[in-house]
Amino acid sequence: MIYLDNAATTRMKPAVLEEMMPYFTENFGNPSAVYSLANKSKFAIDRARDQVAALLNTRAERIFFTSGGSESDNWAITETVRMMASKGRHVITTAIEHPAVLNTCRALELEGYEVTYLPVNDQGFVTAEQVEDAIREDTVLVSVMFANNEIGTIEPVAKIGEVCQRKNVLFHTDAVQAFGQLPIDPEQMHIDLLSASGHKIYGPKGIGVLYLGPRASKIRSLIHGGSQERGKRAGTENIPAIVGLGKACEMARETLFQRMERESSLRDYMKEKILETIPHTKWHGSDGERRLPGNLNFGFRFAEAESVLILLDQRGIAASSGSACTAGSIDPSHVLMAIGADEDEGRESIRLTLSDETTKEELDECAKQLKDIVTMLRSHSLLYEDFLNRSGGE
Amino acid sequence: MIYLDNAATTRMKPAVLEEMMPYFTENFGNPSAVYSLANKSKFAIDRARDQVAALLNTRAERIFFTSGGSESDNWAITETVRMMASKGRHVITTAIEHPAVLNTCRALELEGYEVTYLPVNDQGFVTAEQVEDAIREDTVLVSVMFANNEIGTIEPVAKIGEVCQRKNVLFHTDAVQAFGQLPIDPEQMHIDLLSASGHKIYGPKGIGVLYLGPRASKIRSLIHGGSQERGKRAGTENIPAIVGLGKACEMARETLFQRMERESSLRDYMKEKILETIPHTKWHGSDGERRLPGNLNFGFRFAEAESVLILLDQRGIAASSGSACTAGSIDPSHVLMAIGADEDEGRESIRLTLSDETTKEELDECAKQLKDIVTMLRSHSLLYEDFLNRSGGE
Repeated sequence: MIYLDNAATTRMKPAVLEEMMPYFTENFGNPSAVYSLANKSKFAIDRARDQVAALLNTRAERIFFTSGGSESDNWAITETVRMMASKGRHVITTAIEHPAVLNTCRALELEGYEVTYLPVNDQGFVTAEQVEDAIREDTVLVSVMFANNEIGTIEPVAKIGEVCQRKNVLFHTDAVQAFGQLPIDPEQMHIDLLSASGHKIYGPKGIGVLYLGPRASKIRSLIHGGSQERGKRAGTENIPAIVGLGKACEMARETLFQRMERESSLRDYMKEKILETIPHTKWHGSDGERRLPGNLNFGFRFAEAESVLILLDQRGIAASSGSACTAGSIDPSHVLMAIGADEDEGRESIRLTLSDETTKEELDECAKQLKDIVTMLRSHSLLYEDFLNRSGGE
Repeated sequence: MIYLDNAATTRMKPAVLEEMMPYFTENFGNPSAVYSLANKSKFAIDRARDQVAALLNTRAERIFFTSGGSESDNWAITETVRMMASKGRHVITTAIEHPAVLNTCRALELEGYEVTYLPVNDQGFVTAEQVEDAIREDTVLVSVMFANNEIGTIEPVAKIGEVCQRKNVLFHTDAVQAFGQLPIDPEQMHIDLLSASGHKIYGPKGIGVLYLGPRASKIRSLIHGGSQERGKRAGTENIPAIVGLGKACEMARETLFQRMERESSLRDYMKEKILETIPHTKWHGSDGERRLPGNLNFGFRFAEAESVLILLDQRGIAASSGSACTAGSIDPSHVLMAIGADEDEGRESIRLTLSDETTKEELDECAKQLKDIVTMLRSHSLLYEDFLNRSGGE
């Protein structure tokens, strides 16, 4: 099987699992207890926190462990607006955020908060100027994703951070897709809160991170209870997952720039190859530098993504449509809609995700099968026939 | 090392780990995707949900996976009161709940909700009559734990459930300590919401359960985002942990009554032995049937728990003081305070937790060391000397 879907990066590294194993077996101490085994657990958590902090070029005390990116997004947004309620109840975000941000904002709207969803351009970019123009007296939070999960667009986070700092508004970024894939420095980028996840960087599922900068350090807990995570996030520490995340961060940091170079050149190779060999193909998202190294997104006219994915799967290739969290839903991607795709284009979009193990040969095989599948599907499409007749044939 | 602390039950079974392993390695598909690997993941989650449901004698669609007991408690309480806000803003709970319940209630108080903390008697019991008397027109939720984590008291949950049903108030129980240790049937017991956790039943950390009965099935999400868990709990499914929890539930169900019998007879053996051999020892919690099979809690006058634990640890025995989540904190246990212990008694309490692997020999060794340690600590205690002088000697 060739994995060019989300699972490409969610495949945990053997070295990560190896690091976790002792904490499933002999090192099972509860780090809040006093006895000697507990110290091993406590030390392991401290080390993992250092490893995560190093990847973000920050200090360990700004790192808080959660159960994943969705919890981190919910926590960051919900508790920031609650903390700031006396200043105002206005939040700014974008139309292309992950559902963990969008649906949290929608839940806040039901509670009486007001949310501005900034539009993006046809490549998925929002600008710092848009953010600045949208900031009002009562704006308490700006939440703009670091990079988009579907079309790979990398937002101008540092510029937005600068605006937010100048305007004295807190800035959160959902960095789940960018964490470990791009250099991130929350302090230099004026990010106050940053969400990340373990399973997007070859680490374990069920573990995430919330970075809290100095201006956000006073937010309350989302999960109340015991005094874990310095009183900010209750619940018995998931030590094996924390240890695994730490190891994954260490490995991600060591290989970051090599992976970025390798994956972006494979990405550009595949993009050209597909656009050259399959006619009537649309390229979704940004063109150049400001795209996630491992992200490709194509729309094959007159070939529904659902059919393409099933046929690819039968031929041993796993790919995605839209966002993995809503696959199976019949709504076309909100991200593609936001960059101006129509409903047909929304249903025709295929996403490929490269991992650090993806090879040129796998991409060649995928391109070959895609051409074959798309050609076959189109040959059965009356709409395509009609299109050819009207456009004078291919 | 002899484990008679919390870790006794948090030690994951090898059979659980074995079941999880394939989902760390070859079966890494995202269950929301369409391709064939995803079906394996989806099937694994379905099976685990069945296994959890079977342990609660309920249907799979009432089981929702969370990141742990604390999240389940927070979700159950916070979102029930939000759902019922039009009826009223009054919540009833007890003084001896786990911090995940107590601190969630305190957070609600800051938002303007009113919370009644019912007192308990000297064995830790609350009665259904107390609950009934406390219910008002504007009461929307009763949250009473199934069994107490520190003193093992099993609350009259079925009677309280009956009162709540009759009074048309939703009933939540934090069953983290009881799940897999006692027979639980939410439907027969009129429980509307029930929280449980994986790592207390020899399963993985970082995974929990919220049971939602028919009257509670409409509560909103605590974690918003993707449509996982039928839209109720967002976040990429932690499949290895879900699979491990399922296996742990299956094993717990198969062995439930044998474990209960074995552990309660070991518990009673140890209780008698300690009370016979160490003078001036206080037994905390209930006496008879209505105590968790694996729970013992002693107070050794003039021997601080902290010192006892360190010395036990040096002699190869792990035990706990108070609740594991607040160990290291200097406050005496709120549970012991609630059953009428004074501050000294609060600081002198030692909790022993039996697991299904605990042997009589281990308990004998623990009793021997405890006697030795307590005698030694008392021999250095001026307060003890004073006490002996005043009481006419031992």
